[in-house]
Amino acid sequence: MIEVNHRRYAVPKSPRAIVCLDGSDPAYLDDVLRSARVPTLARFTREGTFAIVNSVVPTFTNPNNVSIVTGAPPAVHGISGNHFFDRAANADVPMNERSYLRAPTILEALQAKGVRVLSVTAKHKLVKLIGAEESAFSAENPGELGRSLVPDRAAPDVYSADASLWVLDAGAAALERGLADVVYLSTTDYVQHKHAPGAPEARAFYEAIDLRLARIERTGAVVALTADHGMNDKTKPDGSPNVVYLASLLDRALGPGTRVTLPITDPYVVHHGALGSCAMIYTSDRDPKKAQSILESTPGIDFVLPRSEAAARYALPPDRIGDLIVLSSRSVVLGKHEEEHDLSHVERGLRSHGGLHEVSVPLILNRRLEKTGHEPRWNYDVFELALSSP
Amino acid sequence: MIEVNHRRYAVPKSPRAIVCLDGSDPAYLDDVLRSARVPTLARFTREGTFAIVNSVVPTFTNPNNVSIVTGAPPAVHGISGNHFFDRAANADVPMNERSYLRAPTILEALQAKGVRVLSVTAKHKLVKLIGAEESAFSAENPGELGRSLVPDRAAPDVYSADASLWVLDAGAAALERGLADVVYLSTTDYVQHKHAPGAPEARAFYEAIDLRLARIERTGAVVALTADHGMNDKTKPDGSPNVVYLASLLDRALGPGTRVTLPITDPYVVHHGALGSCAMIYTSDRDPKKAQSILESTPGIDFVLPRSEAAARYALPPDRIGDLIVLSSRSVVLGKHEEEHDLSHVERGLRSHGGLHEVSVPLILNRRLEKTGHEPRWNYDVFELALSSP
Repeated sequence: MIEVNHRRYAVPKSPRAIVCLDGSDPAYLDDVLRSARVPTLARFTREGTFAIVNSVVPTFTNPNNVSIVTGAPPAVHGISGNHFFDRAANADVPMNERSYLRAPTILEALQAKGVRVLSVTAKHKLVKLIGAEESAFSAENPGELGRSLVPDRAAPDVYSADASLWVLDAGAAALERGLADVVYLSTTDYVQHKHAPGAPEARAFYEAIDLRLARIERTGAVVALTADHGMNDKTKPDGSPNVVYLASLLDRALGPGTRVTLPITDPYVVHHGALGSCAMIYTSDRDPKKAQSILESTPGIDFVLPRSEAAARYALPPDRIGDLIVLSSRSVVLGKHEEEHDLSHVERGLRSHGGLHEVSVPLILNRRLEKTGHEPRWNYDVFELALSSP
Repeated sequence: MIEVNHRRYAVPKSPRAIVCLDGSDPAYLDDVLRSARVPTLARFTREGTFAIVNSVVPTFTNPNNVSIVTGAPPAVHGISGNHFFDRAANADVPMNERSYLRAPTILEALQAKGVRVLSVTAKHKLVKLIGAEESAFSAENPGELGRSLVPDRAAPDVYSADASLWVLDAGAAALERGLADVVYLSTTDYVQHKHAPGAPEARAFYEAIDLRLARIERTGAVVALTADHGMNDKTKPDGSPNVVYLASLLDRALGPGTRVTLPITDPYVVHHGALGSCAMIYTSDRDPKKAQSILESTPGIDFVLPRSEAAARYALPPDRIGDLIVLSSRSVVLGKHEEEHDLSHVERGLRSHGGLHEVSVPLILNRRLEKTGHEPRWNYDVFELALSSP
């Protein structure tokens, strides 16, 4: 056994594949399972384990991938968003560097026990955050090992469905060649940002994923899947993005001086225009209660929580969130000033995440779990399930 | 040490008073702390410990009092509301009997170690749920011991501010006379249902509570306070109750046959008309997705979660919740059919709870806690704090 962040994990004696299917809202699985397009996933859910569990809030990629590999919420590991306001630097900075991590990962604890671990991600930012360089690569930056594992094609563009499929192909090949005992495979939500459940592109994507899962399972691996967050349509009835511009609104009401940080921001914003359903508000020397009361009476906003309340409610690190956290309603995203967002790529549709309506994600295992009365509740329980399976 | 529901607690060597101030939304404390009306509470928050933590969802009295005395969420203890639909009996029944409890309480584990425990509650329903008869009584049903502890006045009506003050007086007297080592004192939210933060009646109530807390502290006890849920105004701009009648709405859309159970219901409904911000929907043999999609597009509703999703998100017992759980927005309550609710007592104002906007509650201790990086997050951490203090 190993102990990581006060949880105990079995050191596995057979191969394990843990897959994070970025942006896999349960609605995508509902659709493809109903239409019999995904025989492998269908078998996993029928003969193995299938539950709907929670991702961590804010429902973004970095906090959730790090929760999955640490088995812990952001209060423990410190990653509160893709991006945060660094008071010391007085600037918004991406949280993509290992130095931001405040907790050890299950992956490195397994490595210390001699388990051969490999992480493959679509976006390179995650490699820097979760993986030791020598045992991790990305579709963006595959290196020699990545290229040798997927020899049939060049590593795809990060804005493509194939970036995710390439990740699964690389992981499958590593298991087939006996190069790794435990693989962590993390895809990108490019497809889910662009296409709703039921759309031909979404269905084709999950069909292609299904083929890769079958390939991975044929290696004998225990296969466990979850997601980092769900995904919802964020448009008005006319199809245009449904945005509440928080900085504009607060400037009008209080004068300039409030900082709005959008934790969805990462190096890859083309598919969502940096618009998500969570924002951090910094009121500097002003009483946050004024901004809170203005935002609470703004249509499209579900919750406005002061720092300490948000930290307690969602197990977040208080020093890496705003004076206020704003969570918007199902079809609404949050922006800064209107002129700060380039909507040209999302003007014909915007799907995004970050709030409470994207908390639910699937948890799937190709093994049946015994009912214990303590069912898994979090996406970050996935390593425990995958490692403890016989 | 004792172990209860997989948590360990110290067996205390000095007296402890754990107080649940029913319906104490943080806004009440903000108001009275700002206006210097509550010197004892002010000192506790200044020199001791003061945090905003989470209550359990649905934010009602029974699930939260039971979470507090078991140190566990409803998935463990089984109490999912004040009321639930019992499939076997095919009827809505109150969850006021000990037999509904699926977990041991911290109180009974302390008793088994020879600690003299006393529970005093305002409403008698809670005595039956949490306390062994010989060491528990209520303002409603004080018995000989209750009458002897508060000899200066008859036990007050349950619909009164004094019902709560009587509870605190009885607990203080028990500690003064050395009759108990650990007291659990649980008040009623009659005042909070009737009066907003800042109202003279609310301020007078917390001033009176403050005097009792000083009296309890003079016995040398470690004093810990929390609440079972918050409280919000649930009216339209004209002051009338802001109700979404779910059974009427679903009958119109789907024909009759959907059952709506309101888990706020208890024997004491005069002050809220059985209207709260959470409802359970039973769709019998119909696909719950139809009702879900109708309710999700209904203004005033925040979340509609299928059973398994709600159970995972809020750690609820799946067999004691609806096919769907509905959570309404800050100023909205949920009803059955219009004709099933008597609004005569709430027509000039309705304050209530039950949803996500009443999750935040205070946690206060008259001792300073060391910062450990693992701060308390739940009202049901209160026994751990109270018992582990030196």
